[in-house]
Amino acid sequence: MNACDESLVSGSKSTAETARPSAAADVTAQPAAGSGSVTDRWLLMRLRGVLGNPAVDFAVRGSARVTCSAAPVASVTFASRATLLSILTDPWVRFGDAYSAGDVQIDGDLVWLLEAVYRASGMGKKRPSMLRRALALRHRNTLAGSRDNIHHHYDIGNDFYALWLGETMAYTCAYYPTPTATLDEAQTAKMDHVCRKLLLKAGERVVEAGCGWGVFALHMARHYGVRVRAYNISHEQIAYARERAAREGLARQVEYVEDDYRSISGEYDAFVSIGMLEHVGVKNYETLGRIASNSMGDHGRGLIHTIGRNSPARLQPWIEKRIFPGAHPPALSEMAEIFEPWELSILDVENLRLHYAQTLRQWLANYEGASERVRAMFDEKFVRMWRLYLAGSVAAFSTGTLQLFQVLFAPRGNNDIAWTRAHLYTP
Amino acid sequence: MNACDESLVSGSKSTAETARPSAAADVTAQPAAGSGSVTDRWLLMRLRGVLGNPAVDFAVRGSARVTCSAAPVASVTFASRATLLSILTDPWVRFGDAYSAGDVQIDGDLVWLLEAVYRASGMGKKRPSMLRRALALRHRNTLAGSRDNIHHHYDIGNDFYALWLGETMAYTCAYYPTPTATLDEAQTAKMDHVCRKLLLKAGERVVEAGCGWGVFALHMARHYGVRVRAYNISHEQIAYARERAAREGLARQVEYVEDDYRSISGEYDAFVSIGMLEHVGVKNYETLGRIASNSMGDHGRGLIHTIGRNSPARLQPWIEKRIFPGAHPPALSEMAEIFEPWELSILDVENLRLHYAQTLRQWLANYEGASERVRAMFDEKFVRMWRLYLAGSVAAFSTGTLQLFQVLFAPRGNNDIAWTRAHLYTP
Repeated sequence: MNACDESLVSGSKSTAETARPSAAADVTAQPAAGSGSVTDRWLLMRLRGVLGNPAVDFAVRGSARVTCSAAPVASVTFASRATLLSILTDPWVRFGDAYSAGDVQIDGDLVWLLEAVYRASGMGKKRPSMLRRALALRHRNTLAGSRDNIHHHYDIGNDFYALWLGETMAYTCAYYPTPTATLDEAQTAKMDHVCRKLLLKAGERVVEAGCGWGVFALHMARHYGVRVRAYNISHEQIAYARERAAREGLARQVEYVEDDYRSISGEYDAFVSIGMLEHVGVKNYETLGRIASNSMGDHGRGLIHTIGRNSPARLQPWIEKRIFPGAHPPALSEMAEIFEPWELSILDVENLRLHYAQTLRQWLANYEGASERVRAMFDEKFVRMWRLYLAGSVAAFSTGTLQLFQVLFAPRGNNDIAWTRAHLYTP
Repeated sequence: MNACDESLVSGSKSTAETARPSAAADVTAQPAAGSGSVTDRWLLMRLRGVLGNPAVDFAVRGSARVTCSAAPVASVTFASRATLLSILTDPWVRFGDAYSAGDVQIDGDLVWLLEAVYRASGMGKKRPSMLRRALALRHRNTLAGSRDNIHHHYDIGNDFYALWLGETMAYTCAYYPTPTATLDEAQTAKMDHVCRKLLLKAGERVVEAGCGWGVFALHMARHYGVRVRAYNISHEQIAYARERAAREGLARQVEYVEDDYRSISGEYDAFVSIGMLEHVGVKNYETLGRIASNSMGDHGRGLIHTIGRNSPARLQPWIEKRIFPGAHPPALSEMAEIFEPWELSILDVENLRLHYAQTLRQWLANYEGASERVRAMFDEKFVRMWRLYLAGSVAAFSTGTLQLFQVLFAPRGNNDIAWTRAHLYTP
């Protein structure tokens, strides 16, 4: 509970007929010098209300401050009233921009601050289906639109990502057999976890939709003896993947195709997609399901690994605007559009959100350790923007605002499936 | 592939743009004596077409026969043209009634026959959502409607069920750590599997929605040290459960409440429901989710175990009419209505359909062994009706027409959840 003074919450216990209580605040507005302080104090209290009254102190530099009677997890200082006013007009976008520009100073742990805000504001609540549909249409993931969206994020430089992703260059949730595993160990364990779920056998053929820097395809080829055809529309990633496959002597087993998942053809024993669905857009899910279904034949297995939601909701708008244009983490009800039209059986769903929080913590630590080099590659604004993105992502997964789903599926009636899941847990 | 002459199927390979091919038949209409044989042969071929041309021989006694050029898995003989005509008007209901009445003779394995029909006919395909909604409304699971529906099936006699369910009296899918486990071993393993998923700890409180004959509640109390309040609207089952709890010295730890799940109140550490959702009806899912959510507080865990579908579809209509009035096995998209309005996180979904096929095979074998006693309790029609229901259920699960989902969930933001699922697989 990161609300400002939770003592006020008790007594408003939820009943069978009402939703759970939201946090309330006991704001102690402290006297401050300056003619503008009364106005600024009022504006700060308003912002705190909009955010659901998290246990955070807020201030305008040299003017007003509102403090929390509960122990605050962090303190946020705005450079000026203009900054604060701008944020008040559209907090979920403007806060990120102001932070990136250096107009917001955080004292205390950035992740804790963002966790407190996520918990207090209850972001990610259900929206009416009409609005949902309208929002889904905003994701312009046409063939050209997808290319632009992917280029924006993934083509900013392989050297940059190499600074903090670790040896595997896997830019998706890792799997920690124990919480003390290293990032590289956990990324390798994730790859094995997926391969085991898919029951890969030597000599089989696998198609991968969205292969990132291609290391998972190499892992499947090297350790499971399969042939892989891997698709990606990021030019930078494909270039890296081909070079690495050649260097590691696996170019004959793994073919990288610089093309959209909608171009996949042929029949395979397994279809796998790790961290691509976020960029597909709900209205393309039925198409993705048709492609998966056709590629698997009657006896294949499929796995989709994706960021998700408890219920349909828009991506945090600053993240969508500045970091991941066109992205949408789906609820399982939305993902049903992939499977149900094609009678694909869902065999296993695993939610790994705590593993993604841990992965992101380790990325963030690596990133902070490399921040001087990032500044040299880009600029201070970029450093702050990506810090906020990574810290906010830790908070989203640790608070349950975002989920991480691995969904294993197979064609209806395929009985060549695992009898139990015990094989995933025996070395 | 149980289609009549699969050689005709090849060549019609599915493409990216078309659905999978359905089976086709090469019917060899054999000459037969009798003036009615031409008409009967035509009617038999029509029926076979309606069923998707399974690899089955069909005949009218003393008249016509159509055989399959592929090896047929069974032969079906109708007592008369009147029987055949009746079935043709509504095959999915009238076949079951005619079989129960003794007007249909099966030569060969009944399960194989039904598997061939399920595979060939592709039952359980997606239907438009308007129709789906209309069908959902048919399930009159009001408080009174549910009581009637449950009474119809579960109150026909505890002695009858005791003949074939085994020692645990569990009338839901078992869990076979290995396929060779006995029925009782597998039912016990299922109970432990669920308790482990729920992370039950001594001293905790559990609410069970729909408790059958109450043995799972006893198992939780005895082996996990929890207190259980268990709800059921079947009078016969509650009477059995209370008597057994007293006999086993667990009456102080387990309270059986003869009431509807909609009457659940109070706060618990875990909410569990095994094999009840099939009787809830989609329009009550949001209510069920509210009850689960409220009963769990902020740190509880929940599990729902249910028969399901790959996509929304009506229950096999004869089963709904004669065996399970008001029942509906949902697709995961329908189940989302339980979880999404209340921001419940789905943590784990396991599909155990092959385990339910195995459970049903063992029930069917027990049932056949006790058929003389069943006949003495009821009559020959009842014996045949329940044989068809059990055999048809084996076929539905073995062909992937029905699924069995265990869904583990928790309130949003509850981080007191299992780090991995390895604990389910370590003794």
